[in-house]
Amino acid sequence: MRLLPLLVLISTLIYATAFAQRPQGPGPAAQPFASPTPTPTPLPPPTVKIDRYRPAAARIIGAALTSDRAYARLAHLTDHIGHRLSGSKNLERAIEWALAEMKRDGLDNVRAEKVMVPHWVRGEESLEMLTPVPQKLQMLGLGNSVGTLAEGVSAEAVVVRNFGELERLGEQVRGKIVVYNAPFTGYGATVVYRLQGASRAARYGAVAALVRSIGPVSLQTPHTGGMNYDANQPKIPVAAITIETAELLQRMNDRGERPTLRLKMEAKFLPDAESANVIAELKGSEKPDEVVLIGGHFDSWDVGQGAHDDGGGCIVAWEAARLLKELGLRPRRTIRVVLYTNEENGLRGGNAYRDAHREEIPKHIFAIESDSGVFRPEGLGLAATAPLQARSNLQEIAKLLSGIGADRIAATGGGADIGPIMREGVIGASLDVEGDHYFDIHHTPADTLDKVNPRELALCVATMAVMAYTVADMPEALNHR
Amino acid sequence: MRLLPLLVLISTLIYATAFAQRPQGPGPAAQPFASPTPTPTPLPPPTVKIDRYRPAAARIIGAALTSDRAYARLAHLTDHIGHRLSGSKNLERAIEWALAEMKRDGLDNVRAEKVMVPHWVRGEESLEMLTPVPQKLQMLGLGNSVGTLAEGVSAEAVVVRNFGELERLGEQVRGKIVVYNAPFTGYGATVVYRLQGASRAARYGAVAALVRSIGPVSLQTPHTGGMNYDANQPKIPVAAITIETAELLQRMNDRGERPTLRLKMEAKFLPDAESANVIAELKGSEKPDEVVLIGGHFDSWDVGQGAHDDGGGCIVAWEAARLLKELGLRPRRTIRVVLYTNEENGLRGGNAYRDAHREEIPKHIFAIESDSGVFRPEGLGLAATAPLQARSNLQEIAKLLSGIGADRIAATGGGADIGPIMREGVIGASLDVEGDHYFDIHHTPADTLDKVNPRELALCVATMAVMAYTVADMPEALNHR
Repeated sequence: MRLLPLLVLISTLIYATAFAQRPQGPGPAAQPFASPTPTPTPLPPPTVKIDRYRPAAARIIGAALTSDRAYARLAHLTDHIGHRLSGSKNLERAIEWALAEMKRDGLDNVRAEKVMVPHWVRGEESLEMLTPVPQKLQMLGLGNSVGTLAEGVSAEAVVVRNFGELERLGEQVRGKIVVYNAPFTGYGATVVYRLQGASRAARYGAVAALVRSIGPVSLQTPHTGGMNYDANQPKIPVAAITIETAELLQRMNDRGERPTLRLKMEAKFLPDAESANVIAELKGSEKPDEVVLIGGHFDSWDVGQGAHDDGGGCIVAWEAARLLKELGLRPRRTIRVVLYTNEENGLRGGNAYRDAHREEIPKHIFAIESDSGVFRPEGLGLAATAPLQARSNLQEIAKLLSGIGADRIAATGGGADIGPIMREGVIGASLDVEGDHYFDIHHTPADTLDKVNPRELALCVATMAVMAYTVADMPEALNHR
Repeated sequence: MRLLPLLVLISTLIYATAFAQRPQGPGPAAQPFASPTPTPTPLPPPTVKIDRYRPAAARIIGAALTSDRAYARLAHLTDHIGHRLSGSKNLERAIEWALAEMKRDGLDNVRAEKVMVPHWVRGEESLEMLTPVPQKLQMLGLGNSVGTLAEGVSAEAVVVRNFGELERLGEQVRGKIVVYNAPFTGYGATVVYRLQGASRAARYGAVAALVRSIGPVSLQTPHTGGMNYDANQPKIPVAAITIETAELLQRMNDRGERPTLRLKMEAKFLPDAESANVIAELKGSEKPDEVVLIGGHFDSWDVGQGAHDDGGGCIVAWEAARLLKELGLRPRRTIRVVLYTNEENGLRGGNAYRDAHREEIPKHIFAIESDSGVFRPEGLGLAATAPLQARSNLQEIAKLLSGIGADRIAATGGGADIGPIMREGVIGASLDVEGDHYFDIHHTPADTLDKVNPRELALCVATMAVMAYTVADMPEALNHR
């Protein structure tokens, strides 16, 4: 039987090797001179006594894993409302539905907090190759892009693999369509082409930009997403193309074939629209003014169903609170569910929450955002800036989740929507999940309910509920120093 | 160091387990009462002496792996001609290009053999949900389907997982659109829904049929493919839908929501068009009338680039012959390359070849078809009916390919295009390749050149060339009994 430890070791090594072959966060391109990993600071001993929370954790996990409520609600959101871009009727329908259902759940202080949001509309759009081989090409305009004239913009394509190649070409791209064909080396390392590609090409006189979709795999799959214009450069239209098209254009470019393209986009902004952050609470029994915030963003891109991004994250936070209420587990502090509006193309929801709750920000003990998909949970990603005592206590609390494999407190974390209050000092964390396939579907027509595993969703609910409940109930505040 | 064998064993077990989790051919649904595997008949000893072929095999493998010719030609076919449905200008352009290039290669008896082919055209097509949640749905009409009236066909959808569920519903599907949502359990087991679904639903009065795409994964990826009508049933239109849409309709069906759909298809047949099988030879030095046939099909579906299916297979056969010629390796018998027309929706090319060459069929020593994609080659799949002496000799010859891992002679094999001459007694085989991802892209817009690994393509060329050369040159004919 002495083989068993060896088997485990070897399996682990093989798994680790396989895992390492998929891009996981910023790769070499983003960190050419990565500094050596600092020696971790030793943590103080935890002050929280988790034994008293074992019975509650057991009830939460048991209840989450025997309920289909989370999946049924996500199914309603995705199948019956669908995608939910800011300014759309769908988003407002989703908000109305959530408010009504949260009241039926018996949650406390259910309310909408008004937020004005950008209203970008895609309109009709197309991309075609004119020469040397006329054909339609798959595309999705990037969110916030300007449109083209009705006849479109037609020009020669120039393909670059990175900004360095663009800089070397410089003025040679004037009057052309710059195509960024940057292979996916992790989201953070690659999304810069989506965010900045248009303005950096416009600086040299490019008339439009196309960006290889930000994802590791493709079945002719375009990924949309937000982009930003540099106020000092002309605004040129920009769209995502599939990996297949990017590689086709790269091959033609490398063979000197100078393909010409026509891009048509009706994209434009309408006046800002009224939307809202949705808020519901489980009011604390002893310190109701102290808040543990859990949430996600209710808006999505205008393709697919916004199932993983971030319908699932919203349902996880909401269902965590509902489950605690159903179980009669009312913690000392308030658990506040926030379904933010307009994360994807503006972050107006997160900023509005900070502004509307500025007075009570010091009373925010902890904030957990779920916005990485609702795959198998691994634990929390805790902001690197979190106090060591908080990290120590969260690591201790996470042991309650070791039975479902969600007991890891990663070295970094946070979330876009909770970012504004984190910058005001609130300890923030992300619900961390197995991330191998999120970017396969992120911002695509394939982010649909069939990609969500009901059991994994339930495990996310359990993880969120156990962490939020324990932090909200433990005698000492998490942010106590 | 005694750990090493253990490591290898454990890695192998882990790999085998992972491999087994993907559907591989007909699964339990297709073989609920699979008969026990018969004891293999012992093979006679091989008569071929492979040592004399080692120098040639070494030269072939070395040359294939240092040449970019195959990939460059496949790039021309895919990037500059594109997909090639029967009746299309693209297919005829491809044929003209191949004839000209083969002549430039100095191959013998380069010629087109005329074949009349069906000319099905897709036209505009669309699918939308009318109620309960209006939305456009991804689709691809199935090849050979009839179209709809201009206003389309609108009806309630009824979802079934298999023919058994359809039979139980029977007349309840009258006037409805039958949706087949059969999970992929291997191509053979699942393609029956694409082939027969329309007529089996029409038998009960359905007005249209939709078939879940035949593939294991999806990013909103529709797979087209051929279908057949039963002459005794009304012809109803039929299209492929994505896994995402099939699952959405299944969920709505199971919740009793009775979704209604509108299917519009302009699909129709034009009069048969003139096409051709493309033939080129490396004339045998001693027995030129004896033929080893190698080939694939030059037509493709009208989406993507037909890169793996079957542009790659054609290039492999063609390049095998060209490489032998370049190396001065002229075998005793003739190696004949056949690029068949119209495999996908008619098999007119394979049937025409049989008819045009009926006299010389007994002189066909062997036929190898490459039509499973051009992934890493594993060897040949030999028809189960092949004589035992032929199997023994092929297993021996395959040892020449053990250095590139392509030395397996599988228990079954063959090909659609060589099927007609196999049924006349010719020994047939398939070029077998690693098959994990073929059906991810099969008959989809994502069957594009970026999915082809140039090194794997070169290994396919080497495998085809070594097998064809040795069989064509060995003193005894492979079909000798």
